[in-house]
Amino acid sequence: MTKQELIHQIKAKRSFLCIGLDVDLEKIPAHLLQLDDPVFEFNKAIIEATHDITVAYKPNTAFYEAYGLKGWESLSKTIAYLNENYPSIFTIADAKRGDIGNTSTRYAKAFFEDLNFDSVTVAPYMGSDSVEPFLAFENKFTIMLALTSNKGGLDFQLMQDEKGATLYEKVLKTSLGWKNSEQLMYVVGATRPEYFQKIRNIVPDHFLLVPGVGAQGGDLQEVCTYGLNNDIGLLINSSRGIIYASPNENFAEIARKKALELQKEMQVILDEKGL
Amino acid sequence: MTKQELIHQIKAKRSFLCIGLDVDLEKIPAHLLQLDDPVFEFNKAIIEATHDITVAYKPNTAFYEAYGLKGWESLSKTIAYLNENYPSIFTIADAKRGDIGNTSTRYAKAFFEDLNFDSVTVAPYMGSDSVEPFLAFENKFTIMLALTSNKGGLDFQLMQDEKGATLYEKVLKTSLGWKNSEQLMYVVGATRPEYFQKIRNIVPDHFLLVPGVGAQGGDLQEVCTYGLNNDIGLLINSSRGIIYASPNENFAEIARKKALELQKEMQVILDEKGL
Repeated sequence: MTKQELIHQIKAKRSFLCIGLDVDLEKIPAHLLQLDDPVFEFNKAIIEATHDITVAYKPNTAFYEAYGLKGWESLSKTIAYLNENYPSIFTIADAKRGDIGNTSTRYAKAFFEDLNFDSVTVAPYMGSDSVEPFLAFENKFTIMLALTSNKGGLDFQLMQDEKGATLYEKVLKTSLGWKNSEQLMYVVGATRPEYFQKIRNIVPDHFLLVPGVGAQGGDLQEVCTYGLNNDIGLLINSSRGIIYASPNENFAEIARKKALELQKEMQVILDEKGL
Repeated sequence: MTKQELIHQIKAKRSFLCIGLDVDLEKIPAHLLQLDDPVFEFNKAIIEATHDITVAYKPNTAFYEAYGLKGWESLSKTIAYLNENYPSIFTIADAKRGDIGNTSTRYAKAFFEDLNFDSVTVAPYMGSDSVEPFLAFENKFTIMLALTSNKGGLDFQLMQDEKGATLYEKVLKTSLGWKNSEQLMYVVGATRPEYFQKIRNIVPDHFLLVPGVGAQGGDLQEVCTYGLNNDIGLLINSSRGIIYASPNENFAEIARKKALELQKEMQVILDEKGL
């Protein structure tokens, strides 16, 4: 998918919502457990109930790996279902991978070719040659961790050099010099709204994937104040707040209701900004 | 596995060699490709040829994920084979995972419970709550990236704060305060021998997993000068230099020859140090 196609979809749907498909068998409605592949059936129901008001889906690979081979099968079926039925929706493998050069190419092949995701999340610790192999894939996006929403995000990401520049700023600035850096996006937690202005000064044009709205306490309005750019430039992720809003048979209907609340809020913001 | 069991194995085999099982279908001998699961057959042959002179095996998950479901099946069969036939050998899932708390627990379950590896590699960027979930598993080890052997390792890991402390040093120091930190090991590249003294000052007692000897140019003697401690404290990994030493039908025999060269060198070092 190209960036223009993503922007077009956002403008058409009046939504920059991403739904996290983090499926936990202990949290999904009990009636699904009797089916052959409860994880896939859960995802299918969520997708069918929300595809017209969300622009992206983001399965976190940890939830699938935890179920071994069966989990990988559920992940394969989910991405195949999305690519077949809703090819215009942006797909994110939330895998947070990263390794030395030739090994990163293997991960890139796994997610971009074998599974055919539009994007994958990566960790920056190993630097340029751990990320550039992902950027070599055309019309695919690499979403790098910058400033994360969790408590431990503060352990290292705010470390300052002698000039007062923080690690996450260095990660952003350095990555702009990497080959095909226009195919980068960045993960910035919604729980850190005070940093969005600084981040937009460094990466004015790139998309930011923003987890942490809802369950983790982030505020949509605050994020949008400095996060939006002329291309919208934001994908706001919500996982638990949408997919586990109801533990009952009507889970998909309630998930739609929750997603719609966020989409309506986004519509107002986009209208106000004339986007 | 406990740390004492690992040390006991090293002393008995006079070896602290780890063999990386990074299997690439384009590099393995052609005659294996006709078999049902060439990746597993390759691993089995390498294991049978080297299990008495190596103390650890380290499959890098990227190589398996690249082959989709079939790749995960090969990985499952490889670790099951090791656990059944050579349960005293230390196993490392080189996965470089890391995510927010409850998600990291999922990864930990995937590698420690479902696949039953003794250890897994993790990335430090997301801090304490991305790593502590792995440390919660008893008799399992979490091997965190500290100073990596690749070119991009220099992009961020040597960033200095106002007092001159580098990021990798901060990662080491901070992690010592995490719950169950005695179950940590650290990845330190063999291409950075000049840093081993500093690292040993910060983490005198922990094991270091050292990739980069051989193909990447690291020198075993140099690494041992400052890397060894009273518990040996080193696992030296070699992948390509051993497993792809021959592209012919005798690949396992030649792999043993290469592994034996390293083991003999290790034996001399251990004898000299009276370990």
